[in-house]
Amino acid sequence: MDRQTLINTIRAKQSFLCVGLDPDPARIPAHLGSGTEAILAFNRAIIEATSDLAVAYKPNVAFYEALGPEGWNVLSETMKAIPEGCLRIADAKRGDIGNTATRYAQAAFEAWGADAVTVAPYMGRDSVEPFLAFKDKFTILLGLTSNKGGLDFQGLTNNEGTPLYQEVLKKALTWRGNENLMFVVGATKAEYFKSIREIAPDHFLLVPGVGAQGGNLEDVCRHGLNKD
Amino acid sequence: MDRQTLINTIRAKQSFLCVGLDPDPARIPAHLGSGTEAILAFNRAIIEATSDLAVAYKPNVAFYEALGPEGWNVLSETMKAIPEGCLRIADAKRGDIGNTATRYAQAAFEAWGADAVTVAPYMGRDSVEPFLAFKDKFTILLGLTSNKGGLDFQGLTNNEGTPLYQEVLKKALTWRGNENLMFVVGATKAEYFKSIREIAPDHFLLVPGVGAQGGNLEDVCRHGLNKD
Repeated sequence: MDRQTLINTIRAKQSFLCVGLDPDPARIPAHLGSGTEAILAFNRAIIEATSDLAVAYKPNVAFYEALGPEGWNVLSETMKAIPEGCLRIADAKRGDIGNTATRYAQAAFEAWGADAVTVAPYMGRDSVEPFLAFKDKFTILLGLTSNKGGLDFQGLTNNEGTPLYQEVLKKALTWRGNENLMFVVGATKAEYFKSIREIAPDHFLLVPGVGAQGGNLEDVCRHGLNKD
Repeated sequence: MDRQTLINTIRAKQSFLCVGLDPDPARIPAHLGSGTEAILAFNRAIIEATSDLAVAYKPNVAFYEALGPEGWNVLSETMKAIPEGCLRIADAKRGDIGNTATRYAQAAFEAWGADAVTVAPYMGRDSVEPFLAFKDKFTILLGLTSNKGGLDFQGLTNNEGTPLYQEVLKKALTWRGNENLMFVVGATKAEYFKSIREIAPDHFLLVPGVGAQGGNLEDVCRHGLNKD
């Protein structure tokens, strides 16, 4: 998917909602049956019920991986059930180098059929560029995450007072294929959006943490929206 | 596996060799046939040929993930082929929070049968402690990696001059279950081993990068060995 297609979907639906698909086998409604068939039916029901509003869907890969080999069929069938024009995000948080990174990218973009994959930056440039090499695919790099431990390392500052997450964004924007980058920025950290938008004014942000985790949608919009 | 079992294996074999299992389908010898059966046969042949010297085996999960659903059977069968007493490391570089991390841990320790899994620290404490909660399993946290981009972020220093990788080690050693930690420290960075051993004198280190990547075994031994 290219950037303009996503922008068109956002404008047509007047929404930038991303729906997570983290199916817990213990919480699937009984009338859907059991096993991996029930999980797939559950995902399809969620997708159908939200397709007028959602512009992106984000299966959390751990929930499929933990199902064993059958989980990978559930994941790729779930990706196929996501409507055309919506961004299919594999929330995988992968991060390894060189030809290993290429294999993770192939799994996400080819085997699972994702348009985008979340990636961790800890190993640096040669762990991210292999993902960025895929044309019309997006690499969503962890910047500032919404969890309690997010600032354990992401908030550490250098001697110029720049926190690690800002260094990550700045360096990543110099890497080959950076036009295929998006960034994860947690909604629980709304006060940081201004500085993030100074570094990356136009890149899309994946913003988890509105709602249960306490993030405020209005604050995120005020500082987080880009021109599109 | 508990720590003492690994120490016993190291002493019995007079070795601390870890053998990577990153099977590239394009490089499997023709006489083994083709498809996932051939990959499993290739892994078994490597394990047999090295079992007198190796104390750990490390399948690189990306290479199995990229095979599609059948890859997961190859991975768990490969784990089963590793001799008792050797550490089975799933090199997965996973890193996500809370119940997602628990599912990644279940995949590694239960579905694949690993004794240890590599984990990235970027998301902080609540992304690592769920792995550490598994008794008699090891979490091998990325500290200082051997790749070219390893220092892009790991080498950034705070205003006291402490680099990020040292902060990672220090903080991780305060987390619940830290007795189940090991650390990845690249052999290409041998000059850093001294400071690492000051922070973590006894924890096991997984040291990639000897040989092709230029790491020197003698240097690593001089500064890296612990009392066991």
